[in-house]
Amino acid sequence: MSHVTILTDFGTRDGYTAAMKGVIASIAAGVVIDDVAHDIPPGDVRMAAWALSRYWNRYPSGTVHVVVVDPGVGTERRALAASLDGRYLVAPDNGVGTLAFARAEHLSVVSLQNERYVAAECSATFHGRDVFAPAAGHLVRGVPLEELGPPLGDPVRLALPSAVRRGNEATGEVVLIDRFGNAVTDVPGEWLTPGARVELGSMRLSVRRTYADVASGEAVALINSDSLLEIAVRDDRAADRLGIELGDAIRVVGL
Amino acid sequence: MSHVTILTDFGTRDGYTAAMKGVIASIAAGVVIDDVAHDIPPGDVRMAAWALSRYWNRYPSGTVHVVVVDPGVGTERRALAASLDGRYLVAPDNGVGTLAFARAEHLSVVSLQNERYVAAECSATFHGRDVFAPAAGHLVRGVPLEELGPPLGDPVRLALPSAVRRGNEATGEVVLIDRFGNAVTDVPGEWLTPGARVELGSMRLSVRRTYADVASGEAVALINSDSLLEIAVRDDRAADRLGIELGDAIRVVGL
Amino acid sequence: MSHVTILTDFGTRDGYTAAMKGVIASIAAGVVIDDVAHDIPPGDVRMAAWALSRYWNRYPSGTVHVVVVDPGVGTERRALAASLDGRYLVAPDNGVGTLAFARAEHLSVVSLQNERYVAAECSATFHGRDVFAPAAGHLVRGVPLEELGPPLGDPVRLALPSAVRRGNEATGEVVLIDRFGNAVTDVPGEWLTPGARVELGSMRLSVRRTYADVASGEAVALINSDSLLEIAVRDDRAADRLGIELGDAIRVVGL
Repeated sequence: MSHVTILTDFGTRDGYTAAMKGVIASIAAGVVIDDVAHDIPPGDVRMAAWALSRYWNRYPSGTVHVVVVDPGVGTERRALAASLDGRYLVAPDNGVGTLAFARAEHLSVVSLQNERYVAAECSATFHGRDVFAPAAGHLVRGVPLEELGPPLGDPVRLALPSAVRRGNEATGEVVLIDRFGNAVTDVPGEWLTPGARVELGSMRLSVRRTYADVASGEAVALINSDSLLEIAVRDDRAADRLGIELGDAIRVVGL
Repeated sequence: MSHVTILTDFGTRDGYTAAMKGVIASIAAGVVIDDVAHDIPPGDVRMAAWALSRYWNRYPSGTVHVVVVDPGVGTERRALAASLDGRYLVAPDNGVGTLAFARAEHLSVVSLQNERYVAAECSATFHGRDVFAPAAGHLVRGVPLEELGPPLGDPVRLALPSAVRRGNEATGEVVLIDRFGNAVTDVPGEWLTPGARVELGSMRLSVRRTYADVASGEAVALINSDSLLEIAVRDDRAADRLGIELGDAIRVVGL
Repeated sequence: MSHVTILTDFGTRDGYTAAMKGVIASIAAGVVIDDVAHDIPPGDVRMAAWALSRYWNRYPSGTVHVVVVDPGVGTERRALAASLDGRYLVAPDNGVGTLAFARAEHLSVVSLQNERYVAAECSATFHGRDVFAPAAGHLVRGVPLEELGPPLGDPVRLALPSAVRRGNEATGEVVLIDRFGNAVTDVPGEWLTPGARVELGSMRLSVRRTYADVASGEAVALINSDSLLEIAVRDDRAADRLGIELGDAIRVVGL
């Protein structure tokens, strides 16, 4: 049987995520459920979208990814299931799939409206357990996507920053600070040529291959494992050390 | 094969929980082991009991739930395995099953005394690995509950607060602050009628359906996904914002 | 199919560990992947080595343990896979296997050089996903260790402290503070005789069996579940309460 993955902002100690796993296991006995993370800051849809973009297509075809970061639970926000290049996403329709959708070649989305696949007693505040977990369980068990509800043609998409290139210059911004304090930008790695120079505040850096290309404690610009320009400090937290914040402007010249 | 779930206060970085999983996998090869949480505050049996109450019966029949929050390890406290409505619990006999036991229709409990199902070299300080994990592995492999030891007729139960109703009034207290800062009370949702008014300190609230029924930043009383009265603040932490603490008295009038 | 376990310092919220799991699941469909921990402090190879020592041989033969705490990623540091008493380890060659290797009776190590088992597009900064996860997936699927690369005869080993015994005295040091604040030393439990007295700073303790052998709040010396001398405080954090730090000297007399 395929894997189900779960990403939430529920934490773990309250037992909410275990309730979701139990519902999935009740529908699809013996399924393997992989935790992605439950420590997304409450309501941070953008961080969840970035995380999802890193793993959704690393899993094999048939995998069901559940993402429940859902500040709008109980409002009129829709719930969706999507098929993207053979994997599935089950999530609130709040933009959490934005990056994954943009990279998928084949995308189809439905609205979770078929009450047959929702918990009999559906709470107003915990759709992770009562809406999304059942949908995931049924999908991994083989229920076709179309069974879950009618097509949803306009899923919500986050307005994410996007670097701009003009001639031999590019401007972008810091879009993510990861656990290591690395500052990820929206500048695509394929734009970067050997002679490019990166400008962030008063800092000037040339692009290197990896962290170890500079001495410990020194700043380095490199193309990271998501093929994006990243600013790091070897063996330290670049964000803290260099005072970098989300949204800081970055400029690359000499492309 | 059925799932095994694990809830502990061991954290993860020391490798103690992985040792438990390894023992289970050694006895029941290929079993799927779901983490519930390992970040229960050390020794907080009450929090673990609440968490367990949320997921134990969401999992299918045959699931083995292991809970090791065990401040009394090495004392004379007993160790138990229980069958409750088809699921199993393996835990120290310290009240962690209180809420689950109260809701189970069919309950039978044994004391883990059969040394055949305990590690050959049993430590005095890590019964998670040497007592509870082996019991869980054997149960999921099909060993009958009765094999693990003699009946235990009087498992320890926590003295949990319980709301009281008198005519059209109810009094209770805050029994849990969850990860979102929501304040859960012991007032059962089924007591609440449309015109009920909730009193918490100087605050007066009517009962709404969901967080989104009030504006962002406003307080709301609602029946939560465990069918309990809960005080929340939309898009914020009610406990911090309203200064709510565990044990705070709550009164509901107009029932 | 056997289990794969993962221990990293990646945290979870960025989705890096899920990317690793996806790669493993893509190669070995349906494999059960157990999280050990992802909250090792960034780059703390020593803590990871201790954690690994607790679970590697609790899992059954055939289990593949992946450890990615890899401050040297992108440098010339080698990558290895090892077979130790029937289990496998896949990790950077930075000493993370030191304690496990020392306890294994049968050990063979190879260098991960066969590009057939590395990601087609291998990043310079995320070998967890591009080198170690593929190796783990192929091993659990049945690819022989020797296929992954040539023998590596001199894996890096950490210079870990090691207690010394002279006559009826032993000297050692605190090598680990665990989540409960217990101070683990490098003094083997088998050296300790009933009359032994432990000296740590100005404190004098006799060796007891378990935490519960002293009153709440009192210090206790005992042989822990790893068969090492440990200093604890019942129901409290010994490290904080007694001001114990890593590397503090410990002396045992009367052996």
